[in-house]
Amino acid sequence: MLSKSQIKLINSLSQKKYRNKNRLFVAEGIKVIKELLNSSYELEMLFAEVDLFFVPKDKFTLVTPQELKKITKLSTAQTALALFKIPEMEEKPLQDLVVALDGVRDPGNLGTIIRLCDWFGVKQLLCSNDTVDCYNEKVVQATMGSLTRVHIAYADLYETLKNTDLPLLGTFMDGENVYKTQLPSSGILILGNEANGISSSIETLASQKISIPQFGENQSTESLNVATATAILLSEWRRG
Amino acid sequence: MLSKSQIKLINSLSQKKYRNKNRLFVAEGIKVIKELLNSSYELEMLFAEVDLFFVPKDKFTLVTPQELKKITKLSTAQTALALFKIPEMEEKPLQDLVVALDGVRDPGNLGTIIRLCDWFGVKQLLCSNDTVDCYNEKVVQATMGSLTRVHIAYADLYETLKNTDLPLLGTFMDGENVYKTQLPSSGILILGNEANGISSSIETLASQKISIPQFGENQSTESLNVATATAILLSEWRRG
Repeated sequence: MLSKSQIKLINSLSQKKYRNKNRLFVAEGIKVIKELLNSSYELEMLFAEVDLFFVPKDKFTLVTPQELKKITKLSTAQTALALFKIPEMEEKPLQDLVVALDGVRDPGNLGTIIRLCDWFGVKQLLCSNDTVDCYNEKVVQATMGSLTRVHIAYADLYETLKNTDLPLLGTFMDGENVYKTQLPSSGILILGNEANGISSSIETLASQKISIPQFGENQSTESLNVATATAILLSEWRRG
Repeated sequence: MLSKSQIKLINSLSQKKYRNKNRLFVAEGIKVIKELLNSSYELEMLFAEVDLFFVPKDKFTLVTPQELKKITKLSTAQTALALFKIPEMEEKPLQDLVVALDGVRDPGNLGTIIRLCDWFGVKQLLCSNDTVDCYNEKVVQATMGSLTRVHIAYADLYETLKNTDLPLLGTFMDGENVYKTQLPSSGILILGNEANGISSSIETLASQKISIPQFGENQSTESLNVATATAILLSEWRRG
C-alpha cells in the first residue's frame, strides 16, 4: 500500500528542484524499469501491480491500479513505477563522437536524442545548463532505456567547448551542405535550441558550420526539428 | 464573441467522426494559420485576439484570451485559432518518391513525417486507413504548415501497393544495410506501426527490405522511432 508521504514524494519529483534535493527520479513501465535495473542505476523503491522484477522485499510495494493512478506521470498509466537514485555526475574526457546540446527545451526531443546517441554509438552527450533535465520523467520515458547507455553531463557549454581540442561542428541554416562535407573521424556535433538555434557565443567557437539541404521546389522557411536533424547528422557521420 | 454553439462545434472537432461530419479541422497559432491561408485550404472561420490576417469580415471573430482558452486544444493557448475546410481527397497517380505509412498511430510522429516529406521534396504521402488522421489537431500543429505542401491520401494500403509498378522498399530489422544499398531513383518507402512495424500482408508486397544499422557495442533490442527512421531514410534517398 502507498503511504501519503510516498505519494507526496513521488509527485514532487516532477519538479527538478525536488529531484535534486532527494536525488531521485521516476521511471515508469516494465521495459524502462527493466533496463534501469540491469544497469548501474540504483533502485530506491518499486511500486507495481505484480511482483515481476525480483527486487529485494524492502524495496518493493504492491499497489492497486487505483493507487498507481495517483502517482503516474503518464496519460496512460503503466503497471509499474519505480524511483531510482540520481548518480553523481562523473567528469569524463570528451572523445570520439560527442553530441552537445545548446538549450534544448523539449523533453521529447531530448529523449529522442538520447535514444539516437545510443543507436549510433555516441557515448557522450554534453548539455548546456539550460537544456531540459535528463531526469525529467518525460525524458526518461522517451529514452526507452537508452539513458543507461549514454553518459550525460551538464556543464557551462561555452567553457567546456572552449577547452577542447576536438573539432566543433555546428548546424546552421547557412552551413556547408553536409552531404558534400568531409566529416572528421572524431568531433563534437552541436545542436541548438528549438526556436533560436545555436547561441551566438557558441557560434564563435564552431570550427565548421554544416547544414542539411532542403529538396524540392517549395522551400519553406521552417527548419527541421532538432531531433530529426540529429538523426540525419548522426547517420551521415556514421555511414562513413 | 464566441457563441455556445461555436464552442461546442470546435470542441467536437477533436473527434474524427465530427471532423468528417462537418468537413472541418482546427489549426492554431499564427504561423500554422498563415501557411494554411496562403495555400489552397479554404478558411471557414477565424478566432483571434487581434485582427492580424486580413480575412473577410464575415469569417472573423474577435475573441478574448479567456474565450480562446475555452476552445484551444493546446496546453499553451495561442493567440489565434482557425477552422479550415477538409478538402475532398484527390486521387493522384503515385510517382517519384512516395512515403507510405502502415498503421502509424502517434499524431506527433505523423506530423513530423509530413514535415520531413516537405523538407525532402516528397510530394505524396500514402496512409493506411488505420493511420492517425492527418486533420487531428496535434498532427496539424506538428506539421508547422507542411500540411499545405504534401499530398496526403488514405487508402487500403494493400490494394494500392499491389497495383503499383513502383519498387516497394520496406524497413525491417533484418533488412539490407541501407548505407550499402543502391536505392532506386523512384519508389515507395514503407514505414510501419510504432509497436508492430510493417504488417505481414504488406511485407509480402515489399520488393526490397532495408534497415538502418546500429553502431557501438551496446546493441539494444529497441528499434528507432518511426519518425527518426523516416528522417534517416529520406536523407539517404535524397543525398544520392
